[in-house]
Amino acid sequence: VNCEDTFSRDQNLDLLFNPSGIALVGASPDTNKFQGKILKYLIRHGYSGAIYPVNPSYDSIMGKACYSRLSDVPGKIELVIVIIRSDKVLGVLEEATSLGCLASIVISSDFAESGEDGRKRQELLTDFAKQSGMRILGPNCLGYINVARQIAASGCTSLEKETLLNGNIGLVTQSGALMGSIYGRAQDEGIGYSLVVSMGNEADIEVAEVIEYMLYDPQIHVVTGFIETFRDLNRFIKISNLALDKGKPIIILKVGQSEKGSQAAATHTGAVAGSNDVANALFKKHGILRADTIDQLFHTANLLTKVPEATGDGLGIFTISGGACGWLADQCQTIGIHVPDLQQKTKNKLSSIFQYGQPSNPLDVTGQAISNQDYFAELLHIFINDQNLDIILVGMTAMPFPTRAAKEIIRARNGSNKPLIVFWTFDRVGEEAYSLLKNANIPLFHSSDLCLKGIRHLIEYSQYKRNLRGFDKPLIQDKPYKTEKMNAMVYLSQKSGVLSEFESKQLLQYYDIPIAREVLVNNETDAIEAAHKIGYPVVIKGISPNIIHKTEAGIIQHNILDENALKEAYWNIQKVFAKELNEEKLEGILVQEMISGGVEIFTGLINDQIFGPGIILGFGGTYVELFVDKAIRIPPLSHQEALQMIMEIRGAKILQGYRGQNAYDMEALAAFLVKLSRLSIDLKDYISEIDINPIIVLEKNSGIRVIDATVKMHK
Amino acid sequence: VNCEDTFSRDQNLDLLFNPSGIALVGASPDTNKFQGKILKYLIRHGYSGAIYPVNPSYDSIMGKACYSRLSDVPGKIELVIVIIRSDKVLGVLEEATSLGCLASIVISSDFAESGEDGRKRQELLTDFAKQSGMRILGPNCLGYINVARQIAASGCTSLEKETLLNGNIGLVTQSGALMGSIYGRAQDEGIGYSLVVSMGNEADIEVAEVIEYMLYDPQIHVVTGFIETFRDLNRFIKISNLALDKGKPIIILKVGQSEKGSQAAATHTGAVAGSNDVANALFKKHGILRADTIDQLFHTANLLTKVPEATGDGLGIFTISGGACGWLADQCQTIGIHVPDLQQKTKNKLSSIFQYGQPSNPLDVTGQAISNQDYFAELLHIFINDQNLDIILVGMTAMPFPTRAAKEIIRARNGSNKPLIVFWTFDRVGEEAYSLLKNANIPLFHSSDLCLKGIRHLIEYSQYKRNLRGFDKPLIQDKPYKTEKMNAMVYLSQKSGVLSEFESKQLLQYYDIPIAREVLVNNETDAIEAAHKIGYPVVIKGISPNIIHKTEAGIIQHNILDENALKEAYWNIQKVFAKELNEEKLEGILVQEMISGGVEIFTGLINDQIFGPGIILGFGGTYVELFVDKAIRIPPLSHQEALQMIMEIRGAKILQGYRGQNAYDMEALAAFLVKLSRLSIDLKDYISEIDINPIIVLEKNSGIRVIDATVKMHK
Repeated sequence: VNCEDTFSRDQNLDLLFNPSGIALVGASPDTNKFQGKILKYLIRHGYSGAIYPVNPSYDSIMGKACYSRLSDVPGKIELVIVIIRSDKVLGVLEEATSLGCLASIVISSDFAESGEDGRKRQELLTDFAKQSGMRILGPNCLGYINVARQIAASGCTSLEKETLLNGNIGLVTQSGALMGSIYGRAQDEGIGYSLVVSMGNEADIEVAEVIEYMLYDPQIHVVTGFIETFRDLNRFIKISNLALDKGKPIIILKVGQSEKGSQAAATHTGAVAGSNDVANALFKKHGILRADTIDQLFHTANLLTKVPEATGDGLGIFTISGGACGWLADQCQTIGIHVPDLQQKTKNKLSSIFQYGQPSNPLDVTGQAISNQDYFAELLHIFINDQNLDIILVGMTAMPFPTRAAKEIIRARNGSNKPLIVFWTFDRVGEEAYSLLKNANIPLFHSSDLCLKGIRHLIEYSQYKRNLRGFDKPLIQDKPYKTEKMNAMVYLSQKSGVLSEFESKQLLQYYDIPIAREVLVNNETDAIEAAHKIGYPVVIKGISPNIIHKTEAGIIQHNILDENALKEAYWNIQKVFAKELNEEKLEGILVQEMISGGVEIFTGLINDQIFGPGIILGFGGTYVELFVDKAIRIPPLSHQEALQMIMEIRGAKILQGYRGQNAYDMEALAAFLVKLSRLSIDLKDYISEIDINPIIVLEKNSGIRVIDATVKMHK
Repeated sequence: VNCEDTFSRDQNLDLLFNPSGIALVGASPDTNKFQGKILKYLIRHGYSGAIYPVNPSYDSIMGKACYSRLSDVPGKIELVIVIIRSDKVLGVLEEATSLGCLASIVISSDFAESGEDGRKRQELLTDFAKQSGMRILGPNCLGYINVARQIAASGCTSLEKETLLNGNIGLVTQSGALMGSIYGRAQDEGIGYSLVVSMGNEADIEVAEVIEYMLYDPQIHVVTGFIETFRDLNRFIKISNLALDKGKPIIILKVGQSEKGSQAAATHTGAVAGSNDVANALFKKHGILRADTIDQLFHTANLLTKVPEATGDGLGIFTISGGACGWLADQCQTIGIHVPDLQQKTKNKLSSIFQYGQPSNPLDVTGQAISNQDYFAELLHIFINDQNLDIILVGMTAMPFPTRAAKEIIRARNGSNKPLIVFWTFDRVGEEAYSLLKNANIPLFHSSDLCLKGIRHLIEYSQYKRNLRGFDKPLIQDKPYKTEKMNAMVYLSQKSGVLSEFESKQLLQYYDIPIAREVLVNNETDAIEAAHKIGYPVVIKGISPNIIHKTEAGIIQHNILDENALKEAYWNIQKVFAKELNEEKLEGILVQEMISGGVEIFTGLINDQIFGPGIILGFGGTYVELFVDKAIRIPPLSHQEALQMIMEIRGAKILQGYRGQNAYDMEALAAFLVKLSRLSIDLKDYISEIDINPIIVLEKNSGIRVIDATVKMHK
């Protein structure tokens, strides 16, 4: 039987996560070992299907009949969990498929994580999965906890607890050790999960597929991930669109950003932007939220399971403490949350009630609302209905009537369709009020930091939902760029390593990117003729593939006004090569038009190993690395997106005409970025980095010119 | 009796915080009111001295005899707490002093916070305190909680709890509502305080005085503050030096930074830096730590009560989770913590034990240390003794033998004099291990963010202790700048508002600051003569006190090459004034030498209302506001500090000679900053802001020239 014909892949995942019978190969009564723990936890946490321990050394374990081999098992095995020596794993999986089992968890380690032999063993598993249709979670994983269905198929120490807290959050983690940290810590803080999955080495099932499975699970409203890498980025991108359609946020803690600085960067692009920046741009493009800590991961997830989307980005802060107002307003500024002014209507209403106090946002309701409890309700009612406010944050500090206040907060929430969140900076004295709010499903935070970062995520996600759906369809197919691509590929097929400035710009010209007029020459006579044709003043440069920084090398001279100066400069460069750079090949001397005026901009392309190509734009010139002012976007870029990207850099103010000065040709710069975007996708298999620095943006309607460029190929 | 003669102020504070008898004027049996709550909490939390309720309506309250008036009280009153109508407060305080009582808490509100009448009432309290020697905490405060001495002299709702947790932290707060939030939340997380003080309106006792009192209290090891303003900044600065001497860290959450953007800034300086930046610089100068959230405030305080100072800034991270290694390393990079490479010696030792895994920092001890518990101890021992590591962070994720691990961690800590901190990202399953660590006084964090920010504070504080003591003695007295100061003051006494460019530079010249050569003229003939004397090319500018941005106004022309061009430019500026700027007075035309080459730097002075003068330095020119690259220091500046300040900006790389280019005169720039620093102190009563933009820094040994400046006076 060819299993791919009879079962869809998703059905097999359903067998994995919801099996009617589980065989546990390597089961043991020793609960200090994973072999004993998994069995113990499956039983303790109420797995209702059949459990078949398999181990020739025992007749029964923990009251369950134990079998010598899989084929002795009397009932149907839908999932096999394997914890035996790594070299025995494949045999067991083969036996399982022969018995009709198509889902497995391989807990055993000693695969790709432990050297060359292990890597080969893992490849065999991968091949076997492809051929047989058997789905494999792991190897070297900790299994999963299906809280909703009471299947604790894991040896994770956190399962020692008596009961598991169910919730509407899914978790996938590429760190086994943190599986328990995240699930366990969240449960300690009253936040439950529906399904928690440890991915291990991902020989077969990879993380995006599990996220996709979770998106189809009606019990899961938010998916979270602790991620080190994506083995199938395209699938992840596809499902991120699915997630937006389904209204289920995906929140990722992606680790490894600090590796950025570890490689010496050959180009400016590498120095200015790293893998982490490309990841951020990619996540932003596809509506993925990004967390920095595991606390943020589960607190933001919890928030998003409890409140509706926000219709705007204005936060209203309501508290009885003036001190908290100042402090939360400061933090909003740091974190980037808009705290708008109130409507005049609201101010008037508030003023008519206030004895003293200012009708502003944040609103300090003052001691008046403490001494007279009715005021609290009345002020909150007026505040929540202000139309400038899209999200309401109530700060509950120590106060004398917390229970009454909690009831009023719940009433206000019930009467409004705005997200309402409580920052609880009160202690156990207010326990009754706390429970009321919690039971009313109002999100509660103890930490202002997690609270406001959660709110920022809510705002971001709501924006994604409003803006991204349907937006941003790839434009690649719109125009027949086929010829360009073919020509560029032919050109590149003869090259390797780092292309010289001249070669790099040749490549750009296949995409109709405007280059400063230039001629590559090999003798003085040709140089003079080229300069005459181009017209003085000119620039001349020595061209050599290995010298990227020409200024330092002393092989560039600007503003050459006449033939005599040209001759002198020509021979100067020849001399530098002969005397100081005699290791380097002089490919020729480039005579280039001298462009005066305009603004120097830096652009580039970085092709990240995990996240693919990213387009970088920054305020440029010699100082680009010093005054980091950059925007990064993932191709394809539409003209509109390119313009938005330009507006993101601080230097955009200069392009628009800063303080009474000239405005520059932003339209031409955007058109260029669209071309670079096409190139980056067409040639991503060839090119690892491109520096274009500088590009001169001329005055409005005068276009742009690429002055210098460096293309670095993968090989 | 003149009390100032018989008691030092500190002795009176001791009466306030440790009285043998307390009278409570306005006492009530109604525990819904502050009047009842304070009495209830004093009794509940075990105040051992005499308590005298005073209220003509009752014979006894809560089992205590109640008196009609203070003079009826039979015993000695060392502290009077007043909660009555605001207009009766002064009379009660007068009566109290006549009875020999010299300490009071005024809980009553309706003073300066509630308008003009209240402000006058408060002034009377201030005057009375000065004349009588009676010390007043408040008005409009919530009292204090002296946990160490079991005196709960407050109506704060957090005191509802049965017991109070004692600790070694002091807290002063200018927000009454947050008193309970901070104390109560900290207690919920197992962190106790020694003394918690609500400051109220500070009619008499202000926050720095209470901090000083705490520094002398042997039970208090760390002082924390929730601060909105300093009424006596000089005292705070003085005690910050005392705190460093005593080895007691001060941690401040200063609110109000988001007000920064609220005023339209007249100068660049105002746009580039605000009160918050000056506060940061001042805190840094005086060894004060700054927290952003109340969680940080008490978690960092708790950390600093438990670990010794660090002898360096290298953090070692030790964990059984590879995922946690990546994540914590990422966060260290974001937060700015150095995670150094291990010594080769350590790597060799680790390699000899490891089956697989990398001997690096962060160290992932891998499953090997889980399956064999002895490895955990051995690896930790090797790791902690690495001499590149000054602070050790152990990440405890979910693991099978937490108790054994905890014991090994305690053993390792006991055998080392390095700070050792545990990041506990494990759940209640590890409770026994958690208790072991806690009882061994090892600092524990659940949040990686609070943990690493606490470690950064530990590093900062240890640096302050190493570097700041004895450093940085004022240089003002070293040289006789008296003449300069007198001349500048005489000059300024005739001026007001915003000085014109010419006037501003005149002022700078009193301090021997090098100005570009220039002459202010009022007719064409003088202009021609001036240009001739200075030598072409020149710049000419129309001078008018109200026009700061000359480029936009069209009244500046650069690079004038000869007399004809000069004449044309001269009349152009006259025309602009006549036609477009006819509201503005033309003070004259400035003919200035044209300086070519050099680097444009921006400097300025901001004189903050709370924090006093701050010197600002940045990479400059037209785009200073766009490419914020700034350093801020508090005067006085030594030459060495000025050089350090220059090195702080990214543009320093350009001054040093960037990528093979020229180096510039950093020494002259530093000398200039020292002069500006002297000026800023001498003239702080006159000047609110100075812009010096640009200053041209010429090549090495060629000095600097101020090109343009604007001085703004307080009035």
